[in-house]
Amino acid sequence: MTRDSLENLRRQLAEFALERDWDQFHSPKNLSMALIAEAAELVEHFQWLTQAQSKTLPAEKLEAVSLELADILLYTIRAADMLGVDLIKAAERKIAINHQRYPAHRVRGDARRASEYED
Amino acid sequence: MTRDSLENLRRQLAEFALERDWDQFHSPKNLSMALIAEAAELVEHFQWLTQAQSKTLPAEKLEAVSLELADILLYTIRAADMLGVDLIKAAERKIAINHQRYPAHRVRGDARRASEYED
Amino acid sequence: MTRDSLENLRRQLAEFALERDWDQFHSPKNLSMALIAEAAELVEHFQWLTQAQSKTLPAEKLEAVSLELADILLYTIRAADMLGVDLIKAAERKIAINHQRYPAHRVRGDARRASEYED
Amino acid sequence: MTRDSLENLRRQLAEFALERDWDQFHSPKNLSMALIAEAAELVEHFQWLTQAQSKTLPAEKLEAVSLELADILLYTIRAADMLGVDLIKAAERKIAINHQRYPAHRVRGDARRASEYED
Repeated sequence: MTRDSLENLRRQLAEFALERDWDQFHSPKNLSMALIAEAAELVEHFQWLTQAQSKTLPAEKLEAVSLELADILLYTIRAADMLGVDLIKAAERKIAINHQRYPAHRVRGDARRASEYED
Repeated sequence: MTRDSLENLRRQLAEFALERDWDQFHSPKNLSMALIAEAAELVEHFQWLTQAQSKTLPAEKLEAVSLELADILLYTIRAADMLGVDLIKAAERKIAINHQRYPAHRVRGDARRASEYED
Repeated sequence: MTRDSLENLRRQLAEFALERDWDQFHSPKNLSMALIAEAAELVEHFQWLTQAQSKTLPAEKLEAVSLELADILLYTIRAADMLGVDLIKAAERKIAINHQRYPAHRVRGDARRASEYED
Repeated sequence: MTRDSLENLRRQLAEFALERDWDQFHSPKNLSMALIAEAAELVEHFQWLTQAQSKTLPAEKLEAVSLELADILLYTIRAADMLGVDLIKAAERKIAINHQRYPAHRVRGDARRASEYED
């Protein structure tokens, strides 16, 4: 019987931290900092590229970018775990909110921020 | 038959963007910006809290934080999808790298950055 | 006659970019990405430290942190320049807004975010 | 006799925090978080724009962007102050490093990251 992929990662990360006695560093505050530092490494890969270039990365760069995305995912899972948040359920709640906030007929082809629609 | 939770979210996001004609905005460059903006909203919740406070959030704040984590997860999934990256496989590769980079016996109780171990 | 320090840095950065033909990369969009990547390098220095530790950095780390702050300042000046923004005047406007938004008698010893006061 | 603009802002921020008893929150760790949160608000303005659009902002958006740049500047000054760092001198040191790292004849028209030149 297969375990869900996200739950599987969550358990691996919990074990990894436990074996290293790293729970003491993994406050949600600290994890939010580590998470944004990883997000910035992703940004750094794209900062001087055009949008078109960012869609067609050379293989070596794509692998580096994949690992940055992995880092972000892992810290997101870890932060949720330390907060006792069910990440998948939260994502489902957020998708439901987004459906309400951005009705397809109203925002088609338009990516302005939600706050700008509220005028 | 259940579909994996992450794959399930990936499909919902792809449909959501398609219905709104938003693929045109979802270059990896742009998505990296949206992702870090969400990561910063998480940071903002914790910036004036102590580490101890960040572990015991009041219910309303915990729900807000959960939705920020959801936003980060959703943009990470979306960015991976637009790049053709298998996020779970990338995460498994990254965990394997971390096991090599941070042997438990060497880094126990010590959270210095990897680069600082390389001296 | 001395030139103002910020204006002096602005000119050096403009010359630096001109000599390297880098204006083509320095769109405000790209500069905002470079800026946040530098801000994240600052965050990275502090992510596993306690607040107390962050106040008493060893000399070598303090110098590294100083250069990260410098990077952030330089990209901020450069972004303002490419947008035609007078950074000092904008800072003065923002300080005036902050005085209105956070009256001393109301927020003393309390660092909640402005939006939380609006309830 | 005019005081340097940056020094002038530094003093205003120190007084502002003192009057509000906010020094207790302004650890370098916390300030790095506040700083990156402001940098992200800048990024958010540009995330769905093309590079060309980011250069020609409507007046209202330009004013909002100016105030984000101001916020970043103010937190950078404040963080430097709390760390005892002379921001202008650090910026001059960093510019000197950049001149060495990116010789004009070698990087003209090429914006790859420094690390990519080191191969």
